[in-house]
Amino acid sequence: MSLTIKLTTTPHIINLNLHPKHRTKIPAYSLGVRPKPIYHSNALISILYNNKQPRMSQASASGSVIKSSLIEPDGGVVVDVIVPECERGSKTLEAESLPKVRLARIDVEWVHVISEGWASPLKGFMRENEYLQSLHFNSLRMENGTVVNMSLPIVLAIDDETKENIGSAKDVGLVGPDGDLLAILRSTEIYKHNKEERIARTWGTTAPGLPYVEEFITPAGNWLIGGDLEVLKPIKYNDGLDHFRLSPQQLRKEFDRRQADAVFAFQLRNPVHNGHALLMNDTRRRLLELGYKNPILLLHPLGGFTKADDVPLAVRMEQHSKVLEDGVLDPETTVVAIFPSPMHYAGPTEVQWHAKARINAGANFYIVGRDPAGMGHPTEKRDLYDPDHGKKVLSMAPGLEKLNVLPFRVAAYDTVAKKMAFFDPSRSKDFLFISGTKMRTYARTGENPPDGFMCPGGWEVLVKYYERLQAEEATPAAVSA
Amino acid sequence: MSLTIKLTTTPHIINLNLHPKHRTKIPAYSLGVRPKPIYHSNALISILYNNKQPRMSQASASGSVIKSSLIEPDGGVVVDVIVPECERGSKTLEAESLPKVRLARIDVEWVHVISEGWASPLKGFMRENEYLQSLHFNSLRMENGTVVNMSLPIVLAIDDETKENIGSAKDVGLVGPDGDLLAILRSTEIYKHNKEERIARTWGTTAPGLPYVEEFITPAGNWLIGGDLEVLKPIKYNDGLDHFRLSPQQLRKEFDRRQADAVFAFQLRNPVHNGHALLMNDTRRRLLELGYKNPILLLHPLGGFTKADDVPLAVRMEQHSKVLEDGVLDPETTVVAIFPSPMHYAGPTEVQWHAKARINAGANFYIVGRDPAGMGHPTEKRDLYDPDHGKKVLSMAPGLEKLNVLPFRVAAYDTVAKKMAFFDPSRSKDFLFISGTKMRTYARTGENPPDGFMCPGGWEVLVKYYERLQAEEATPAAVSA
Repeated sequence: MSLTIKLTTTPHIINLNLHPKHRTKIPAYSLGVRPKPIYHSNALISILYNNKQPRMSQASASGSVIKSSLIEPDGGVVVDVIVPECERGSKTLEAESLPKVRLARIDVEWVHVISEGWASPLKGFMRENEYLQSLHFNSLRMENGTVVNMSLPIVLAIDDETKENIGSAKDVGLVGPDGDLLAILRSTEIYKHNKEERIARTWGTTAPGLPYVEEFITPAGNWLIGGDLEVLKPIKYNDGLDHFRLSPQQLRKEFDRRQADAVFAFQLRNPVHNGHALLMNDTRRRLLELGYKNPILLLHPLGGFTKADDVPLAVRMEQHSKVLEDGVLDPETTVVAIFPSPMHYAGPTEVQWHAKARINAGANFYIVGRDPAGMGHPTEKRDLYDPDHGKKVLSMAPGLEKLNVLPFRVAAYDTVAKKMAFFDPSRSKDFLFISGTKMRTYARTGENPPDGFMCPGGWEVLVKYYERLQAEEATPAAVSA
Repeated sequence: MSLTIKLTTTPHIINLNLHPKHRTKIPAYSLGVRPKPIYHSNALISILYNNKQPRMSQASASGSVIKSSLIEPDGGVVVDVIVPECERGSKTLEAESLPKVRLARIDVEWVHVISEGWASPLKGFMRENEYLQSLHFNSLRMENGTVVNMSLPIVLAIDDETKENIGSAKDVGLVGPDGDLLAILRSTEIYKHNKEERIARTWGTTAPGLPYVEEFITPAGNWLIGGDLEVLKPIKYNDGLDHFRLSPQQLRKEFDRRQADAVFAFQLRNPVHNGHALLMNDTRRRLLELGYKNPILLLHPLGGFTKADDVPLAVRMEQHSKVLEDGVLDPETTVVAIFPSPMHYAGPTEVQWHAKARINAGANFYIVGRDPAGMGHPTEKRDLYDPDHGKKVLSMAPGLEKLNVLPFRVAAYDTVAKKMAFFDPSRSKDFLFISGTKMRTYARTGENPPDGFMCPGGWEVLVKYYERLQAEEATPAAVSA
């Protein structure tokens, strides 16, 4: 999990990973001003933009031995609760003898997330004290007094009948939707599932139409069961994409193999256009300017539940591959992997989870855009969240002080230069903003977006997907299904 | 703010105020068990209950010099933003020249709260970054990295017209409901008032019928204005109760004058019955057993907005006076004062505010009961909050680590002993629970509660209040008003 780059001979050892001086978080009382447009909330960035010579540059110029290691995971170690192969048989036998809890599809995604340590230090579904801290404080206090971020309740709901069936048993077996025994949940605690309060505190609204709520909370049971997980074997989806599902441990190994001295994560659930690519490439350039020798991009599409009108994972993965094939992003300095979490569309609450999970995978820089994890209000004609709240909340979130938050510069289509470029407010009329909805409309109608919006290979993937979709929708079988 | 009790001659100095070893907070991961019935969540209490000889007792027995000081206020100093008398004239002149914001009654209560430092380190109405931290994290991170609790948004709403009138002015004058100039708000920041999100995240519901919401949020403007307060003169109500409205500074002086070495606060918005008194007296006895020499009770009724069916402040103050006159509580070791905050009825979110404000007034012990700051769900037949969540959330709240949280033992009427006593589950049928609603029904119908429920002088105050109320309600004038 660490690497040493020998530069020359002097004996100084400098930790390249975190530079407290350069990445100072926004203090609570100093941000009482309107946001500046660009990378405003991070002291690091003012250094980047002012082209000041950073410390470690000087150090490397003067020829130190530079020791680098990846950012420490929350709680100190990446949780891994997958049962070792040698114990699988005995644990499976034991699980068979226990009262059973039948998992919904979403629960399996969370078992996957917990099992690999994305939610470290969480070792299982939340017990009530963890749930309450998550709901009220977006963080957990550890026994040693340190605080880790934990903004989304990661909970398992059960119904009255299952609760009764469990009775006073402390351990239960978790069974997948297909009837496979997946895991044991140990030392369980059952407590009330107050759905209204959970929804209100997580989403900041109880309006009907929130995708995660409608699909998974409203139909769920009135109890939550917390406990420590032992997962009988790694969760696989057999959809041809499992090789992209690298665990935090695997990602850390990969970053170490590539001798990364900075890892910057880009969370997405949409196709990559050239504006995204510009931003990612620009971030790398600036990290190099800051003195990092080998910043690695983690291009990290979300792979769990997404709402019906989002582009499906398999299509997005194909599109991302084209972006790398076409050279828009450099495969040498980019790791593409799937983040197995489901989407909540819970804006400022969820973006903390997205960032925190990437710390556990080794990322010490996190790029955050406009309205992260946001969506339209389900019943009113407006954004559900203030588009600036995501980055503000993320920048102030407890337990994320060690992460460098990089607010997005807005990229748009420059109709003069005929390419995606950082928006220049002094000639705003030259820029064309192409939203996700607009992009999908182009692809759906077969209309081409302006040249330079997306690499042709990537665009073709989208056009073909929408053609297939429309063909399916047009068949009577699909309509009657 | 500190006192020294000389005991004998040895030179050890022991801080009596906070005993980290004895008051350990519940760590996030150790509370995964069902609550034990009595004082379960505080390590201090296990010492109290096990009658272990505490450290400072040994120290005093061995004859140390014991130095004691009151608990440190949040941020290190109690905020005081009341303009010194010598500057009042010039500041008033300046205020007259500024754009004006007309305050609602509730805003004046908050100006009062902020001006005296109950919300320290908050120096004015919240700017957006403070608001977001309060809403999402129930706490604020200070510039030096320390965290203070701040669970309720303390904000000032303005409407479109007022916003337009303020324009680009940075300072504004605050005008009371009667037209008096009360304060200047400096270096203001105006941001959106998303009422739905504020309500959902504060109350955990958006159901119609929340008293604070209906009265003060729904009718309020769509903008919030934050800034630093300068209050032109102390807020007074001229209701004959102002002498009970001691500021945190005045309370600290009073505790010092009495040479308190522990201050335990009891927040209430109901008449005091003998069960409350038993609990308060029992807490004092246990603190003495723990080695404190002079624990002082802060009996601290809430004096701001309460819902219509709560007993009004003046009646409660009269009732509390009788309780002390009748000797149910000892005036020598009790300070009665009014806490000027309005009630939100926001349960686990609000109880943190109630506790935090008392730290600023010098209390290092806080008694918390069943369902603190709770109420019935406005549209469903159930408690709005889980009755145990208040004490659990309080025990884990960021920024309150220095406070000793004392969960309530349940007291009920013991029909055998014919007095209020701690509930004994082994003979539960002997106990009668008399809720606030039940108590009000007794008083309203003129029926007497069982002997020993409340001191006769205190009970008479309530009966007379309800007689007056019924007489008023019966007059046609009142009905048509």
